[in-house]
Amino acid sequence: MGSYFSEERSVEAVNERMGEGIDPRLRLVMGKLVEHLHAFAKEVELTEAEWALGIDFLTRTGQICSPERQEFILLSDTLGLSMLVDAINNRRPHGATENTVFGPFHVEGAPLREMGDNICLDGKGESCLFEGTITDLDGTPLEGVELDVWSDNADGYYDVQQPDIQPKWNNRGRFRTGADGRYAFRGIKPVSYPIPDDGPVGKMLAALGRHPNRPGHMHLLVKAEGFHTIVSHSFVEGDAYLADDTVFGVKDSLIASFERIDGDTVWRSRFDIVMARPGETGGTPSQPAVTAADPGVR
Amino acid sequence: MGSYFSEERSVEAVNERMGEGIDPRLRLVMGKLVEHLHAFAKEVELTEAEWALGIDFLTRTGQICSPERQEFILLSDTLGLSMLVDAINNRRPHGATENTVFGPFHVEGAPLREMGDNICLDGKGESCLFEGTITDLDGTPLEGVELDVWSDNADGYYDVQQPDIQPKWNNRGRFRTGADGRYAFRGIKPVSYPIPDDGPVGKMLAALGRHPNRPGHMHLLVKAEGFHTIVSHSFVEGDAYLADDTVFGVKDSLIASFERIDGDTVWRSRFDIVMARPGETGGTPSQPAVTAADPGVR
Repeated sequence: MGSYFSEERSVEAVNERMGEGIDPRLRLVMGKLVEHLHAFAKEVELTEAEWALGIDFLTRTGQICSPERQEFILLSDTLGLSMLVDAINNRRPHGATENTVFGPFHVEGAPLREMGDNICLDGKGESCLFEGTITDLDGTPLEGVELDVWSDNADGYYDVQQPDIQPKWNNRGRFRTGADGRYAFRGIKPVSYPIPDDGPVGKMLAALGRHPNRPGHMHLLVKAEGFHTIVSHSFVEGDAYLADDTVFGVKDSLIASFERIDGDTVWRSRFDIVMARPGETGGTPSQPAVTAADPGVR
Repeated sequence: MGSYFSEERSVEAVNERMGEGIDPRLRLVMGKLVEHLHAFAKEVELTEAEWALGIDFLTRTGQICSPERQEFILLSDTLGLSMLVDAINNRRPHGATENTVFGPFHVEGAPLREMGDNICLDGKGESCLFEGTITDLDGTPLEGVELDVWSDNADGYYDVQQPDIQPKWNNRGRFRTGADGRYAFRGIKPVSYPIPDDGPVGKMLAALGRHPNRPGHMHLLVKAEGFHTIVSHSFVEGDAYLADDTVFGVKDSLIASFERIDGDTVWRSRFDIVMARPGETGGTPSQPAVTAADPGVR
């Protein structure tokens, strides 16, 4: 069963213990995890006090999790891992709308509304008309696309964070495109907000000299038969936190125009959405095969 | 504040967010953590399903932790990280007794006993005489050394795991050397046992085709003024799990002889202990400075 553990051959000592008949993808992923974990500890010469702090940090992170709170996702988000995994798994041809983090506040089954409807049900915030086209890479308008949108309210909270204060489905809605491939709805200009920062992740951010804020954004989940589903946001042009979103969600192509207009609706935001079919290629690598290998460590 | 996140410059995008005035050791450790974490995700092209499984695994690992159970230490142990951190922080000159994992079952304040006393209070198991010398690197016997020992009982459990069944301090004791630097006490020949394997770590081991067993061992905590404290075990020669301790604790030099003898005491185990002074060097690198830097992420 191999030789004993030593500092020099720590990775081999651990990985040669894996059994013969195990899932090959699990063998690869866990083997590489051990390799990179040990390389980290060796490179920084991790002290016993730092190791103990890490054990304590992970324990507290797990213990604050609840059906309403997922602190490990916050940790992944704030260390850029969520955006990295999103990027690796959603490479699209040049010109297609890029993905960004899904976030924890999506709710299935929001009301299906008519184009032009207002999703803001509490009347608070700066009214805004959101509009744009949904096309394929050639610019052909797409009919029957489901556009699911959600944003925070004027105080920076999603309805599910304030079930006693906000009307159900406040600032949420689903829309379906017609033959012209256009969408239009009213809501509020989204405002920046901090991610929950009263737990271990918030303390980590403070120790790192980082703030917990995200720039204002409208969430977009765009689905159409025969196209890659888009999980993205349109960000508010000019927001103070665009350059330093604490979860690294911002991309140049996702910043939407916001212009002041007259009347009840005081803002108008334009964001066009371009969908790609599986296999379509452009200037960038096409999407790799996603192996939904289950490492089986449930 | 830098450019937006991309797959290519994911590490820089995250690390350039750290503030100016933060602890330099924290900057190094967290920067390298992000670097190795992202390198892992990129090398295996981590899928979204695998990421979600990882989040769920870490969450369950945190949630099973309690004052009596530390599943993240089990995870660190079974991935070889605990032994690696121990090795990095306890490099000793050639000839000095090597360290191994501390384990979760030490209890402060065990009874101080006389040489020759029996630490086995329940009368169960194969009786064994443990003896040896405690010297410095030159072989000079050391007086006044505190030797704190603990082992499992005949069923493979430590007393703290069975507070209702085992007498308090069963198979535990402290001894202090006289001028001859010798120690001797009676106990039982330790038996192999599985680490707690009914949680996430046990399921991980099963998926990896690994067993959860440790070879039988006597824990040793050896303290003397002016010497490096030794945290180690003496392992039972001939144990079936010596070559594949699930926490990688075995080292050649830590395997003690166990010979059958006559009389009530059916085994005799010999293990000599050699203590090193800070700064003493041998054929291997001396102990590096241990920076007890506190990353401040409490």
